[in-house]
Amino acid sequence: MLKNEITELLNINYPIIQAPMAGGITTTELVTAVSNHGGLGMIGAGYMNPDQLRNQIKEINQLNVHNFGVNVFVPNEFSVTENELRFSNETLQPIRETLQVRNEQLELPTTKNVVKTFHDQINVVLEERVPICSFTFGVPTKEIISKFKERGIILIGTATTVREAIEIERLGMDIVVVQGAEAGGHRGNFIDQTEKSVIGLMSLIPQVVDSVEIPVIAAGGIMDGRGLVASLFLGAKAVQMGTAFLTTDESGAHNIHKEEILKTNEDAIVFTRSFSGKVARGIKNDFIAQIEEHEDMLPSFPVQNTLTQPIRKAASSESNKEFMSLWSGQSPRLAKKQSVKKLIENIIDEANKMIN
Amino acid sequence: MLKNEITELLNINYPIIQAPMAGGITTTELVTAVSNHGGLGMIGAGYMNPDQLRNQIKEINQLNVHNFGVNVFVPNEFSVTENELRFSNETLQPIRETLQVRNEQLELPTTKNVVKTFHDQINVVLEERVPICSFTFGVPTKEIISKFKERGIILIGTATTVREAIEIERLGMDIVVVQGAEAGGHRGNFIDQTEKSVIGLMSLIPQVVDSVEIPVIAAGGIMDGRGLVASLFLGAKAVQMGTAFLTTDESGAHNIHKEEILKTNEDAIVFTRSFSGKVARGIKNDFIAQIEEHEDMLPSFPVQNTLTQPIRKAASSESNKEFMSLWSGQSPRLAKKQSVKKLIENIIDEANKMIN
Repeated sequence: MLKNEITELLNINYPIIQAPMAGGITTTELVTAVSNHGGLGMIGAGYMNPDQLRNQIKEINQLNVHNFGVNVFVPNEFSVTENELRFSNETLQPIRETLQVRNEQLELPTTKNVVKTFHDQINVVLEERVPICSFTFGVPTKEIISKFKERGIILIGTATTVREAIEIERLGMDIVVVQGAEAGGHRGNFIDQTEKSVIGLMSLIPQVVDSVEIPVIAAGGIMDGRGLVASLFLGAKAVQMGTAFLTTDESGAHNIHKEEILKTNEDAIVFTRSFSGKVARGIKNDFIAQIEEHEDMLPSFPVQNTLTQPIRKAASSESNKEFMSLWSGQSPRLAKKQSVKKLIENIIDEANKMIN
Repeated sequence: MLKNEITELLNINYPIIQAPMAGGITTTELVTAVSNHGGLGMIGAGYMNPDQLRNQIKEINQLNVHNFGVNVFVPNEFSVTENELRFSNETLQPIRETLQVRNEQLELPTTKNVVKTFHDQINVVLEERVPICSFTFGVPTKEIISKFKERGIILIGTATTVREAIEIERLGMDIVVVQGAEAGGHRGNFIDQTEKSVIGLMSLIPQVVDSVEIPVIAAGGIMDGRGLVASLFLGAKAVQMGTAFLTTDESGAHNIHKEEILKTNEDAIVFTRSFSGKVARGIKNDFIAQIEEHEDMLPSFPVQNTLTQPIRKAASSESNKEFMSLWSGQSPRLAKKQSVKKLIENIIDEANKMIN
């Protein structure tokens, strides 16, 4: 049961994928530790510029890992109104003052810039012949998919509903990650509205498995052998885990972020679009509390993300948990401070005991 | 694995509980079919007056079923403002006109009335010595719990977070149902706010199991052997299924309700408080669409429920799906039109194949 078409496709020992968390978490240390201990390490390239991405790929390649992948954000057209900008700045201003963040003139992203970065990232992945590439927030064009396929790169899409999974299969991608309601960080819905696409894994896995032929990876709230075995019995072939890897020694997450997850409970975790303009799941703190009432009026992703960046940076450098984005899935009580080796070994031991 | 402390406590063959759906669904035919085929049938007494409840209990007792239970709603103090009432009536008026519902003077519930009904229901359960009683929307007082315990009645609480499960255990109840984010119908949270208590079963089951000693029943999106086995591996000892039983031949749900579930997809199912004033999950229709924008301004449960009752009644009698409350969990694609016998047999066959 722990060896199947996905472990074969991805050329890994165990059906465990480290979620490609963006924003400095997926250090080379983390990615290589996961891959060297039998799972699949993934670079979360979402916020990286092409040079940063190329450098990390080269660095990992030199370390001779078993296998690894890269995740990129698929850009969506966006625009921003003067009203949204003014409103965002008004709500952020008191926080900037609290943190003594200078009100600098930020260069706001445009659809054109974001699309260019995406294409540059794609080219790096192709040129460096990364063996596995996954996509979030949308699907690439058929042309891009063909280029990857010509090079034998395995393609993974991210879906939150059956319809999205079917679209990923229709485009010829090899594997679909289903992101359950439990998942930390940003929602990956790209066809269905958010209110209709936050579906718990108990419902999402079997309904997707019944509707597509490509293998399914389950993501959201999975932290241990119980979650792995349950996902496999629901029909998934592997699991993708974010929060469980975030708190490992090797992850690049801020120490405060790790500590807060280790301290918190499932009932402190909420959805918010206040940090980035896109709905994401994390630990409720002062930032979310101060902005939530008006969050429908904020600019879209990634504009709001750019606007809040100086605040998040200042909060990080001061280790101020109240103004950092503390993404977490819904199972923080199961998070542990441990090495990647220990985490993977424990999961596999526990799973083997359950199924044998 | 399918025989455990819960099947023993509840004196049933299989770890399958039929969710006590309120509002005419849990007919004597349904309850007895479930109990006679190895599961636990439950009367959803939430909206019943004491006489109706007593009559159904007597009717079931005469049929000599193996075992069954009753579920009651625990009342919470509520009040309603003139503004909320006016606002609700304004939003409902166009719908009343569409359905030609007369604008009669409705007798609105008061906390006092609702508490009285609850106590009357409790007395019926005690007097009729129903072997199992479950509670939703809160927990009974210690005094009530003692009365049940004196008569050897098994008590089941409903929790949506670890904190709520711990409270249920602390009060001395025997079993806790954990209601996952996937569940159809009303949310059962009674300590934690709704935004923080919609937790997917993949996260909720193991975190609760690690935190309480009493056995756990998983509820939400479970429809087949896969869901049962996954729940058991996550640490639950049984499952409670609502939507799966709602579409059976024996259920008293409106035919239109059954048909809509059988036709719909997971991405058509949303949360709404427009029907009752309390957040509940169901199929999105015109009623929800027309009211959702302002639903924060509606009166609390059960006042809004009373205000919308004539509309729901008229819609039901005309088989108009757009103005009925079409509660459903997040797995409608797995729903089938079949007998209770077939449903239970299929689940157990599938589960046995998976675990043997």
